[in-house]
Amino acid sequence: MIIDKNKIEQLEQRYRTTFINSLAGFRQAVLVGTKSTEGHSNLAIFNSLIHLGANPALFGLINRPDSVQRDTLQNIISTKAYTINYVRADAYKKAHQTSARYDKDVSEFEAVGFEEAYLPPCTAPIVKEAVVNIAMQLEEIIPIKINGTVLIVGSVQQIHIDEQLVGNDGFVSLSEQQVVISQGLDAYFVSSPLGRLAYAKP
Amino acid sequence: MIIDKNKIEQLEQRYRTTFINSLAGFRQAVLVGTKSTEGHSNLAIFNSLIHLGANPALFGLINRPDSVQRDTLQNIISTKAYTINYVRADAYKKAHQTSARYDKDVSEFEAVGFEEAYLPPCTAPIVKEAVVNIAMQLEEIIPIKINGTVLIVGSVQQIHIDEQLVGNDGFVSLSEQQVVISQGLDAYFVSSPLGRLAYAKP
Repeated sequence: MIIDKNKIEQLEQRYRTTFINSLAGFRQAVLVGTKSTEGHSNLAIFNSLIHLGANPALFGLINRPDSVQRDTLQNIISTKAYTINYVRADAYKKAHQTSARYDKDVSEFEAVGFEEAYLPPCTAPIVKEAVVNIAMQLEEIIPIKINGTVLIVGSVQQIHIDEQLVGNDGFVSLSEQQVVISQGLDAYFVSSPLGRLAYAKP
Repeated sequence: MIIDKNKIEQLEQRYRTTFINSLAGFRQAVLVGTKSTEGHSNLAIFNSLIHLGANPALFGLINRPDSVQRDTLQNIISTKAYTINYVRADAYKKAHQTSARYDKDVSEFEAVGFEEAYLPPCTAPIVKEAVVNIAMQLEEIIPIKINGTVLIVGSVQQIHIDEQLVGNDGFVSLSEQQVVISQGLDAYFVSSPLGRLAYAKP
């Protein structure tokens, strides 16, 4: 079937959100750890991690300021510090539960049952049981005016990972650790490898 | 192990590219179809698709202007039209092959063996054998100054998909079609479902 722009606009709101969001395909499920200036820890699931560059190492996140993730954005702006954490399949329900609208002074670490830890000098909390922890520093907030979202640009400050997961060429084996992938707002997956291919030449 | 910013900067360049790119995790593998003002069709693999919003339906793509994808960016700027296509596991090698640096007048459709088709009125070509085709219109190019990349913001104009893949609530079943996922620059996967979860409440 063909669904055009007019038909998309006429879809029932929740159906459209699920349709367009799931249509965007598979994405890394990311737990973002922050701390408010009052010292409250926050943990929120994102599915918008973007690789922006390797040198310097820069990652992006998309944030809708009116979403449940607004506490995360406010904490990142206030403290410049945040962490990115990937979890295994056995923790996907707890990861999803961080998307609930807890009060601002509730720590999602405690509420959903992840252990809070730190990677000094980063002041934002990490998820201790995660496969990967990445300490980030805010570099820039870029407004996307057409719909009021923002692109959070951050630089990688520190990476905490089991060295056995990093291959001789630098490739990180997330698949063998059953790192969780997301699609849409509520679907979770793990990966099965098809293969790695050589640099393509004409 | 802990790898800090200084150590990342000291890594050998190819190792660092593979490490940081694969560290960014799993992402939708996307074939972007465009046409030059001279009428040459172009097809290039991207792994930076971003969901920006559902109403209006907006997707983003990250582009490094000096990359092999520069023809794609130029065509999008010139014509405002492009398509987004997802392929099945059996086509992952052909999809990867579109990343080779073919001459500007070579059609990657012909070079790698995908069938070119059209979704009028979109002037950019689609991949006929893809599971999903999305006709896009350029809305804005947002520069990310810190490293010279750009965010291509586009609006969804038309979606071509088998209606049996769209559930009653709008969810698109990409997993059952073995739609290809990528990690880093050369690794490909398919997904195995863990489950869909209810809207999270505290």
